[in-house]
Amino acid sequence: MSQQPIGRFPIPDLKDLPEDIRERILGVQEKSGFVPNVFLVLAYRPEEFRAFFAYHDALMERSGGLSKAEREMIVVATSAINKCLYCVVAHGAILRIREKNPLVADQVATNFLKADITPKQKAMLNFAIKCAKDANAISDAEVEEMQALGFSEDDIWDIGAITAFFALSNRMANLTNMRPNDEFFLMGRVVRKNDGSS
Amino acid sequence: MSQQPIGRFPIPDLKDLPEDIRERILGVQEKSGFVPNVFLVLAYRPEEFRAFFAYHDALMERSGGLSKAEREMIVVATSAINKCLYCVVAHGAILRIREKNPLVADQVATNFLKADITPKQKAMLNFAIKCAKDANAISDAEVEEMQALGFSEDDIWDIGAITAFFALSNRMANLTNMRPNDEFFLMGRVVRKNDGSS
Amino acid sequence: MSQQPIGRFPIPDLKDLPEDIRERILGVQEKSGFVPNVFLVLAYRPEEFRAFFAYHDALMERSGGLSKAEREMIVVATSAINKCLYCVVAHGAILRIREKNPLVADQVATNFLKADITPKQKAMLNFAIKCAKDANAISDAEVEEMQALGFSEDDIWDIGAITAFFALSNRMANLTNMRPNDEFFLMGRVVRKNDGSS
Amino acid sequence: MSQQPIGRFPIPDLKDLPEDIRERILGVQEKSGFVPNVFLVLAYRPEEFRAFFAYHDALMERSGGLSKAEREMIVVATSAINKCLYCVVAHGAILRIREKNPLVADQVATNFLKADITPKQKAMLNFAIKCAKDANAISDAEVEEMQALGFSEDDIWDIGAITAFFALSNRMANLTNMRPNDEFFLMGRVVRKNDGSS
Amino acid sequence: MSQQPIGRFPIPDLKDLPEDIRERILGVQEKSGFVPNVFLVLAYRPEEFRAFFAYHDALMERSGGLSKAEREMIVVATSAINKCLYCVVAHGAILRIREKNPLVADQVATNFLKADITPKQKAMLNFAIKCAKDANAISDAEVEEMQALGFSEDDIWDIGAITAFFALSNRMANLTNMRPNDEFFLMGRVVRKNDGSS
Amino acid sequence: MSQQPIGRFPIPDLKDLPEDIRERILGVQEKSGFVPNVFLVLAYRPEEFRAFFAYHDALMERSGGLSKAEREMIVVATSAINKCLYCVVAHGAILRIREKNPLVADQVATNFLKADITPKQKAMLNFAIKCAKDANAISDAEVEEMQALGFSEDDIWDIGAITAFFALSNRMANLTNMRPNDEFFLMGRVVRKNDGSS
Repeated sequence: MSQQPIGRFPIPDLKDLPEDIRERILGVQEKSGFVPNVFLVLAYRPEEFRAFFAYHDALMERSGGLSKAEREMIVVATSAINKCLYCVVAHGAILRIREKNPLVADQVATNFLKADITPKQKAMLNFAIKCAKDANAISDAEVEEMQALGFSEDDIWDIGAITAFFALSNRMANLTNMRPNDEFFLMGRVVRKNDGSS
Repeated sequence: MSQQPIGRFPIPDLKDLPEDIRERILGVQEKSGFVPNVFLVLAYRPEEFRAFFAYHDALMERSGGLSKAEREMIVVATSAINKCLYCVVAHGAILRIREKNPLVADQVATNFLKADITPKQKAMLNFAIKCAKDANAISDAEVEEMQALGFSEDDIWDIGAITAFFALSNRMANLTNMRPNDEFFLMGRVVRKNDGSS
Repeated sequence: MSQQPIGRFPIPDLKDLPEDIRERILGVQEKSGFVPNVFLVLAYRPEEFRAFFAYHDALMERSGGLSKAEREMIVVATSAINKCLYCVVAHGAILRIREKNPLVADQVATNFLKADITPKQKAMLNFAIKCAKDANAISDAEVEEMQALGFSEDDIWDIGAITAFFALSNRMANLTNMRPNDEFFLMGRVVRKNDGSS
Repeated sequence: MSQQPIGRFPIPDLKDLPEDIRERILGVQEKSGFVPNVFLVLAYRPEEFRAFFAYHDALMERSGGLSKAEREMIVVATSAINKCLYCVVAHGAILRIREKNPLVADQVATNFLKADITPKQKAMLNFAIKCAKDANAISDAEVEEMQALGFSEDDIWDIGAITAFFALSNRMANLTNMRPNDEFFLMGRVVRKNDGSS
Repeated sequence: MSQQPIGRFPIPDLKDLPEDIRERILGVQEKSGFVPNVFLVLAYRPEEFRAFFAYHDALMERSGGLSKAEREMIVVATSAINKCLYCVVAHGAILRIREKNPLVADQVATNFLKADITPKQKAMLNFAIKCAKDANAISDAEVEEMQALGFSEDDIWDIGAITAFFALSNRMANLTNMRPNDEFFLMGRVVRKNDGSS
Repeated sequence: MSQQPIGRFPIPDLKDLPEDIRERILGVQEKSGFVPNVFLVLAYRPEEFRAFFAYHDALMERSGGLSKAEREMIVVATSAINKCLYCVVAHGAILRIREKNPLVADQVATNFLKADITPKQKAMLNFAIKCAKDANAISDAEVEEMQALGFSEDDIWDIGAITAFFALSNRMANLTNMRPNDEFFLMGRVVRKNDGSS
C-alpha cells in the first residue's frame, strides 16, 4: 500500500493512546481489515476524538427514518461540494456497499442531479446542499416543502445534522491533509452475486 | 423578555430530559442567570447534545496556546461569514467579556480587518476564514507561514478545529432557527471600573 | 475614548473648513454630544461633502412612505452585506433609537431573515439586497410584486435609492478606513422606561 | 429615434420642473444636441437630482491628477462590472471623445486587461474594480502600492470616489431601467482628421 | 490600423500554411476586405484550425430554426459573460449587420435584459447563459419550459451547442490574447438607407 | 447493463448514420468492447460529430510535450469543476489506464491538490483551472511563470486548448444529459501484475 504520509499533523503511536481509543481503533481494524486514517489522524486529540465519533455514531447509526445508504449519500454529496478527498472516497465506498450499487457514489459525488436515485432522494440532497452552503437562508417554507414531500421533522433534522457534522469533518480532513486509505477506492465496486457486498 | 419561539423544532421539557442533561442545563442557569437557548434546542437529541458540548468544551476551554478571547474571536468572525445570528450574538457577548472590550465583537463580526486586534490576531482570523470557506485549498505553505508568525502546530489545529466545530454549530443554529437570548445583546457592553466584567 | 486614527486620509482642522461645513459639524456636535467621524473624514473634500449630505438628507429625512426606522434598516442590512464597519455601527445605533428596540440592529446586520421585523419589512430588505448586489437583474415583475405587497412607486424608489446611496457611502467608508466613533456602539441598547431613547 | 420608454418611473414634464433643474437640462441640450436620459429620469426627485449632479461634477470635472479620460475609464470599467447599460454606453461615448480613440471604450468595458491603455492605467482600473466589488478588503498595503506606482493621495481618493459615485449611479440606472439615448452609441467612433471629435 | 501584436503565440506566415488553410484565409480576406485575426492566430495549429471552423460553420450557418442574427446574439451574450474581447467585438459587428440594428450588440453585451429584443429572445439568452455558467444544473423541466415557449428540440440543441462552442472559442481567444481587428469596432453602426448594411 | 436513457435528445440508429460515422463507431466498439455513449449522443448531428472528434483527436492524441496521461488529468480536473458526470467518469477511466494508477482519477476529480502527482503537474492543473474559470484574466506573467516551470509554448497551448475543448464537451454532455456507460466506472481500478492494464 501507499507510503505517502497520512496527514499533516503528528500521528500518535497506538501504544501511547488512552485505552478506550486504542480499543476502538483495534475493533475497527478487526472488522474492516485496516484502520481508516481518520482514526489515526484524529487520535492526536483524544477528547476531540471521543466527541467526534460519538457525534458521528449518533447520526450515522441512528435507526428509523432515512436509510443508512441515504445518510451516506448526504455525506458524499456535501463532501464533494467541500472538495474533501477523504470523505468523498471513504464514504463513497460505504455508500456503494450500503446501496449495493457500484455506480452511485461517483454519480452523487460528481453531480447528484444525474444520479440513479429517486426524486425524493434528490430533494433530500438538494436540501443538504442548501444546508452546506447557505444554511443561513433556510426558510420555514422550505422546511414545509420537505414535509410535503414526506420527510418527517426527524428526517429533516437528520439531513441537516449530518450535513453540519460533515461540514466539521470535511474541514478537519482538509486542515489535517487526511489521506484516504488506498483500500477505500475499490470497495463496493465489484458486486457479488449472492450477497451484494464487495 | 421576548416571547418569540426559540427554534423551529420541538423544545423538550426540562423534566423529561435525561438526568445528566438536565443537570448541565441547571448548572449553566445558575452560573449565567439564564439558560442559553442552544441548550434547550439541542436537548431534542440527547446523544448529539452530549457530543456537541463535549466537543465544544474540548476546544473552547482548552488551556495554553490561544487565549480564551482569541478562541471567541474565531467563533465570531467565522459565524458572521456564515450569517449565524445565534453564534454571532452569543459568542460576541462572551468575546466582549473575555477581552474586556465592548467594541471588539461588533468589529470582528462586521469586518475583522478593521478591528482593534493585533496583526497576529488578524492573521489568525484570516486562516480561520480560509478554513471556513476554502479548507480544501489550505496548503503546506500556508501552514508554514502561520508557523513563521509564531503559531505552534497546536495553535493551528485549534484555529482550524474551532472553525470546523462552528461550521457545524452555525449550520445547526440556522437549521433549527435558534434564537439568541435577549440577554446576550447587552452583555459586556458596559465595562465596569474595577473588574472589567459587564 | 479611543486614540485610534479615524481614517486613512488627512483630516482637516475644523478651523480651516469653509464656514457652512464648520457650522454643520458644530450643529451635529451640539445635538449628538460628539462629531461622528464621517463628517471629519469627508470634510477633506468640501464640495463632495456638501453633495453627500444633501443627498443623504434628501433620502433619510424624507417624510411619508417608509418610516425613518425602515430607512435605517435598509442602511444596516445593505452595509452589512458590504462589510462596512462604519455604517453598520453608526446606523445600527440610529436604528435602535428610531425603532426603540435594542435587538433589531444586530439582527438585521447579521441575518435579517431572523430579525424581529414584519414580513413586509423582510420583503423590503430582500429588494434592497437585490439592489445592492444584482441591481442589473431587477425586473418589471419584481417591481410589480413589491407593489402587490403594498409598496408605492415612491417607496420602491426610496428603497433602491437608499441602497444606492449607501453603496456609495460604504465604499467611501471602506476606502478611507473610516472608524466608527466609540459612542455609537452602546447607543440605543439600554431602553429607558418612559421615553424609549437610550 | 427610438420610441422605447426611457425609464420605469414617471418622467416629469420639463415645464413642471423647478427653474434651476429646467435650466440645467436646457443647457445640456443646447451643448449636446439632445437631453441625456439621466437628466429626465432623475428629475423625478429634484433634491436628489441636485445632489447627484453636484457630486458628479465635483468628481468628474475636477482638474489636476487623473485626466478626464482616465476618470471616464473608471466609470466604464466599473459600470461594466455592474452591468449598467446606461453608464457603459453614455460614458463609453464620452471616453471615446475625451481619449480621441474609437476603440478604447469597448475594450475597457469588455476586458480592461486587453485595452490599449498604459500599465499604470490598468493598475488604476484594478484598484477601481477592487473598490467596486471588495472595498471592505482594501488594505493599507494596497494603498501604498498605488502610491509606489505614482498615484498621489488625491488620485487614490478620486479613483475610489468615482467608483463609489458610480456604484450609486449604476444602481439608480438599473433600478429605474434608464435607457441610454440612441445618440450615444455612435459618438466618438468616427475620428475626424483635424479635431479628433466625432 | 493598429500596430499592436495580435496574439501571444507565434503567428505563421500565410505562405507557410497548408494550401486549404491559406485558401480559406484568402477567401475571407476577399469577402471582408481584411483577415479577421482569429484565422491567423489559430492557424498556428492547422488540424485544430480545420476542426474549429468546421464546427463553427456547422452551428452558425445552419439554416432553419434560429435566425442567423439570433445565433450571433447567443455568441455576444455568452462571450460578454466570459469577458472575451475578441468575440464580443467581432460577433457584435456581425450581429449589428445581421440584425440591421446598430444598438443591439452593445445592449446584448452589457445587459441583455435591457436589449431591444423579444421576450422569446430574452428566454433564449437566459438559457444560453445557464448553459455557459451552470450547464450541470440544466433540468428536464427547463428544457420543457423552453419547448413551451416555442423552441424545438433542434433550437434547444443549437442554443446549447453555440454556447458550448463559444465556451471553447472564448477560452482560446483569452489564452492566446487574440486582438479584435480595428475594423470590427465600427462595422454595422451606420445603417444605410437602402440596404441596411453598414 | 443499465436500462437508463443515455441522453435527452434523440439517439439515431446506427444504420441511419452516414458511412464514415458508422464506421468510426464500429471501430471504437471493436477496440473497447462497447460504444461510449458520447458517440451515440453526438451522432444526432453528423457535421458537429465530425468536427468534435477531429478536434478531440488533434488535442488528445498529439505526440510530444504533455504525456497522454497528463492530457487526461486536465480533462478530469476541469470536468469535475464543471460537474460533468460523463467526462469525469469516462476520462477518469482512461486516466487510470494511461497512468496505470487506480487512485489518481478520483483524487484529481475531487481535489487535485491532494493527488499523487508531481508539483509540476499540479501547476499544470492550476493553469488549466484558471483557463476553465477565469481565462479572461490569464496574464503574460502567468504564461511566463509556466515557462519558468519548464512548460514550452506548445505545452501551454495544449493545456489551454484541452481545457477549452472540454469546456465545450462538458456543456454538450450536460445539455444532452449524456450518461456515462456503466463499463467506465470499473475500468483501470484493478491493476494487473504484468501489464498494468485493468
